[in-house]
Parts: sequence; structure tokens; C-alpha cells
Amino acid sequence: MNPLFANLPTTVFEVMSSLARETGAINLGQGFPDDPGPEDVRQKAADAVLNGYNQYPSMMGIPELRSAIAAHYRHWQGVDLDPATEVMVTSGATEALAGAILGIVEPGDEVVLFEPMYDAYLPLVRLAGGVPKFVTLQPPHFRLTEEALAKAFSPKTKAVLLNNPLNPTATVFAPEDLTLLADFCRRFDAICISDEVWEHVVFDGRRHQPVLALPGMRERSVKIGSAGKIFSLTGWKVGFVCAAPHIMKVLAKSHQFLTFTTPPNLQVAVAYGLAKDDAYFDGMRRDFARSRDRFTAGLNTLGFDVIPSQGTYFVNIDIAPLGETDDVAFCRRLVTEHGVAAIPVSAFYAQGAVKNVVRFCFAKKDATLDAGLERLAKAL
Amino acid sequence: MNPLFANLPTTVFEVMSSLARETGAINLGQGFPDDPGPEDVRQKAADAVLNGYNQYPSMMGIPELRSAIAAHYRHWQGVDLDPATEVMVTSGATEALAGAILGIVEPGDEVVLFEPMYDAYLPLVRLAGGVPKFVTLQPPHFRLTEEALAKAFSPKTKAVLLNNPLNPTATVFAPEDLTLLADFCRRFDAICISDEVWEHVVFDGRRHQPVLALPGMRERSVKIGSAGKIFSLTGWKVGFVCAAPHIMKVLAKSHQFLTFTTPPNLQVAVAYGLAKDDAYFDGMRRDFARSRDRFTAGLNTLGFDVIPSQGTYFVNIDIAPLGETDDVAFCRRLVTEHGVAAIPVSAFYAQGAVKNVVRFCFAKKDATLDAGLERLAKAL
Ligand SMILES: CSCCC(=O)C(=O)O
Ligand SMILES: CSCCC(=O)C(=O)O
Repeated sequence: MNPLFANLPTTVFEVMSSLARETGAINLGQGFPDDPGPEDVRQKAADAVLNGYNQYPSMMGIPELRSAIAAHYRHWQGVDLDPATEVMVTSGATEALAGAILGIVEPGDEVVLFEPMYDAYLPLVRLAGGVPKFVTLQPPHFRLTEEALAKAFSPKTKAVLLNNPLNPTATVFAPEDLTLLADFCRRFDAICISDEVWEHVVFDGRRHQPVLALPGMRERSVKIGSAGKIFSLTGWKVGFVCAAPHIMKVLAKSHQFLTFTTPPNLQVAVAYGLAKDDAYFDGMRRDFARSRDRFTAGLNTLGFDVIPSQGTYFVNIDIAPLGETDDVAFCRRLVTEHGVAAIPVSAFYAQGAVKNVVRFCFAKKDATLDAGLERLAKAL
Repeated sequence: MNPLFANLPTTVFEVMSSLARETGAINLGQGFPDDPGPEDVRQKAADAVLNGYNQYPSMMGIPELRSAIAAHYRHWQGVDLDPATEVMVTSGATEALAGAILGIVEPGDEVVLFEPMYDAYLPLVRLAGGVPKFVTLQPPHFRLTEEALAKAFSPKTKAVLLNNPLNPTATVFAPEDLTLLADFCRRFDAICISDEVWEHVVFDGRRHQPVLALPGMRERSVKIGSAGKIFSLTGWKVGFVCAAPHIMKVLAKSHQFLTFTTPPNLQVAVAYGLAKDDAYFDGMRRDFARSRDRFTAGLNTLGFDVIPSQGTYFVNIDIAPLGETDDVAFCRRLVTEHGVAAIPVSAFYAQGAVKNVVRFCFAKKDATLDAGLERLAKAL
């Protein structure tokens, strides 16, 4: 068996969700809402399952959805994408990531990775034979610096993997940081694989800045999005990839061999959803912000040291002031003894793991959050 | 970009389906039925989309579906699988194949491949760094022989990829052939990745023989199945993997990084469908056999040289007697000039391609088949 996979642990998200299912704990770990998702979007999918097309759709995604993705990004992010050559639908953002990394990185290529990072990045880079070059971002602001990038980039850099908004830190990169990164990509002729699945979940008036809209980045960016995250339907596994035609041609091939295509009934519904008006998306953000505020206030009241959330479904606490030095042990105790699942942030590090940060998902009903807070009170 | 992908052509299935869509041709190329699929199964999915769970399900598949898969194979194929450790749900059989090859094959490992072969096999083996060892199966029976296997297997053989029933030849391997293959797998300590997506679509009283039920093969087999093929819902992309726990542990990891999980609403419906009674599955086979017979008779009447179909949605013709020496040119003419899409079988060869065989999909309504035959008459 391939030791690359044989020696990997099960992802912390699944471990924690399994523990939550087994113990009946309140699951504030893995990032998914307990809201059922917009009813009209689900109705569209149900209609398509009953009366629509259930056979192989076009490999790149149904034309209707590809056009809707382009129109959506034109409206929200001011980018002009050609749906026929620059947009592809994948079976979730995970497949999009896998396809981008396997399609772009060749054995020996260097890939710049920022820690903390989503736990799929490094195994996929290794699978492609890539050589990771880590940049550890520093709390509390997790900024990109000229100095750190200069150390990480080299003539062998093929790609850099960015996640913005950043999971798990719940921070949004400053415009200057993105400009700096684009600068390095152009200088070293590197492709930016930009995981922007949280693009719509940004708070306090923030607007998402897609990397491919930065000067000179259109021909060297892969933008990854997620309908699951946008519509609180994380199980649907409908992802988007946007890239210039010369890159997309290659990504289409990796997609061809990873899943080939994505359920057309769900694609129809996502196409419908992406055309919703501003009030819908603004309302969604407002609702998540309200949940963030409620949960943050609750944590503060309990005396936890909260690291503010700027975006994503997540908020973190610093457990060092509690005298805790092992986030994994802390989370294990939390779920088994106190009935609350959370994510130990050390799982997002390959080296030099921070051991004092714990991530909660606040994309939950008020009652769920309140019940979680009550249990956390007892854990203190 | 990774030249492995950059230099690959778009899969012939997509090329032909695109041409069919553009030209309005009758699509007898890519393997999908024009039947909408069983209404009760689709109703279950619609219900689950509306009233069920739409968030991340358990990574390995919902317990309900994993149990249904085990029960289904127990009933139909007499194998006893533990749903908790030997069954996994994937986003289609393509993901199952990708995950199995990437999870098992390490750079430098030899992998035995039988030509003709499904066009995803070789790129995936190459992506894993595997070294393909080809065995070309000979028409009209496409048998495995001691001699050919002895040439292909070596102490460096890590895996062999079998497709049974075999697409595109529409043949079913004889029990002796499977026994012979199992023998080689045991002798060379190789894993058999067994693509059995056509297991239910076998005709004339045949019963499918899963490789993992052969003596000594349980601990060295990966069985791949497809709900899309079983239920004529090819767009659903719900696949199954069965393997012994020590193999499954690794396949779970590759799945974790390729798609992570599969829509739970479709999983619920597939679980329901797999529990249907014998009459359903026997009826499905009978219906496909009837379509095969109708289309075969039509081709014969027109004077085509038909190679009989024992299983799958497909039947082939030999175009050599028509004086044709280039299946690709023939198929291109067929779709653009005569409005019928078919698949040139040379696309299933990496070397020594046969150029005189053309594949048709007969999993279509009578009217579609008849219209196709009418157009084929004019092409003669
Ligand atoms: C694919 S499971 C992980 C979901 C997620 O984005 C998270 O919890 O960070
Ligand atoms: C994934 S498209 C190919 C479908 C199929 O099995 C075939 O046509 O051979």
C-alpha cells in the first residue's frame, strides 16, 4: 500500500464528528450548519431528481451552472469569466483541490504552504511529488510578510496554496498581503491555487478579494469555491474551479480521472441559488454574524480568551490562560466528558504546532449554541 | 503543469457526447440509459433533499447505505462483508478507481492492465508512478491465458486491474479465467482491483462472480461497484468500494483527500434501491436483454457484423467487412454526417490498437434504438 496514505491519520473533522455521533455530544467541530439550507434551493434539486436529468451531465458541469457561476462572480467580485473555457464544476471543493494540485504540481516542484492550513493540502502536495515550503503565519493577525515569502519562494516554486478567508483562524487577508503574494507569484512564475470556499462568509462589511482579479494573476490563478459553504448544504459536494483557459485545459483532465462529473440535479439547484438577489446573501452573512456574536459573547462571559472571527463559520479560543498545554487532550476531554465537540487547531500544522488554540463552529441554531455554552461552563 | 495531464486527450465519451449534443445526433456512445431511472428511488432522493440531511455525512458513507451494500452482495453474490470495516461509499466508481490506484500503487510498482481497457486506468496508474504491464486480450473471446499472465506478472507486480463484465467487449470472464487470475495474484502477492460496475447487467442466465469471493482473494481484492450503473442513474455518482479492513484503512485515506464524502440524500435513496426484491433486478436485466436483442437484430438485418453482447449496456460491430480501417474516422463520420454517436474501440487501447471495432450503447428506448438503426441504414 502507498505509505503516504497508509501512515496518515483520519482527518480530525471525521474523528471529532464520529465521537460526537457516538457520544451524543453537541457538534461544534466539523464546519457545517445545523440549518437545513434554503428550502427553495432544495426544492429545485428535488424537482430535478424527480423530473429532470439524472444521467451523466457534461463533464465540465452543466452549461446553466457554469454560466451562473460566471454571472455570480461578475456581480459579487467584478471578475469576467468565460463560462465555456474558464469555469468547471467539481464534486466538492476537495476534488477541486485534489485536481488542481495533481494537475499542476510535478514531482520535485516546490509548493508554498501557509500554516495553519487545511489538513488536505499537505498530503495532496506529497501525493503529487511536490516539495512543501512552509510559511508559518503568526497570531494574532496571520499576516504575509515580505521576509517570510522571500524565504519560501524560489525558482523551483511551481505553486502556492492560499486559503482566504483562512480556516481555522477565521481571519481575512489584508489587500496589501494579497498584493504582496501576487508580486511573488509573478516574480517566480508561480500559480496561486486559491481556496476561497469561505468567500461569502465574511463579516463586518468586509468584501472578498479574489486572487485572480489582482494585476497579472488572471493567467496564474486557480480559484476554488464551494456551493456547500455558500448555501449551508455541505453534503451536496458541488465545487467550482475558475482558471484561465490554458490552466483549465489541464484541470479538466485531472477532473476527468478523479470523478468525471457531478450530479446534474444538484447542479441545477445550485445554478438557481447563485442567481439569488443581494438581500439573500447579505442576510446569510448577517445571520452568521449574529450567531458569531452570540457565541463569542457567551464565550467571553464564561471567561474564555476569544480570538475574534472576521469570516468563516469558526471562532477560536486560546486555552493557554486556562493552564492547558495540549489542545488535542483538551478537545478529547471536552467531547467525552462534557459533550461538546471542537477542533484542536494543532491539526492544521505540519510542524511547530500551536497547542493552545481550539476552534468552534458557530454556524448553529441559537439553542445549539446556548446548550454548547452551558456545557462549556461546566468544563471550566 | 503536470505533463501527464497536459498531454492527455479529452475522454472519448465526453468528446462523442459533446458532438452528439452539438449536432443533435442520437447518442449511442457514452454508456447511459435514456430511461429516467426508477421513480421510487428518485422519490426517496427527492424526499431526502427536502426533509432529510444535507450536511456532511460520515466520510465512509451513511451507515444505512454501507449496511445495504453488504446485504445486497450477501444476497446476490454470497459474500459476507462487514459494513463497518469493509464497505465504503465514493463519489462514483471513477473516484473509487482513482482512490484505489493512488492508495495502493507506489512509484515503480508494476500494475497489470488488460487491453482493451477503460480509458481512466492507464492515466491513473501513471499518476501513481506505476509501471503498466499490458496484456492484450484476443477477440472474439478475450480470455485470460496462463502464458499471457506469466509474461505480465513479476515479483514487482503490486496490482492487477480487472474489469468484469468487460467494457467495451461486452464479455464476461469465464470462471476458469478468474481462477487463473486469482492464482497469479496469490503467487505474486498482488492486489486485484476489480472494477465490477457492470455486475448486475449480465444476460442469458449468467451470474456475476466477484473476485473477492475466490479462494485466498478476500485479503487481496478491491471490489468496485456503481449505483449509477445498477439503477440507470449514471449522473448520481454514487460508487461502492469493498475490501478487507487492512486495505480499506488505506483507501479511506485516499477517499478523504479526493472527495471526502458523497451527497447523503442520494445515498439514502441508493440504500433503499439496493434492498429491492429479485423481481426488480431480474426485470432490469430482462429489459436490457430485450433492448440488446432488438438492437442486435436490427444491426444484423442491416448486414453489420455484430459481436454478441454477454453483459454491460454495449454491443460491438466489426467494421472491417465494410472496408473500414479507421474506427475513429468512421465514428466521426457517423456522428457528423449520419447523426449517430458511437464509440471507436481503439480508445480502449494504449498500444496495438484494434481499429475495426465500434461500440454502441443499447440501453435506450425502443424508439431511440429504431431511429438509430434507421440512420445507420443510411450510413451503409
Ligand atoms: C470536509 S470536512 C471539513 C469541513 C471544514 O471545512 C472544516 O471543518 O474546517
Ligand atoms: C464516465 S463516462 C463513461 C461511461 C461508460 O462507462 C462508458 O461509456 O463506457
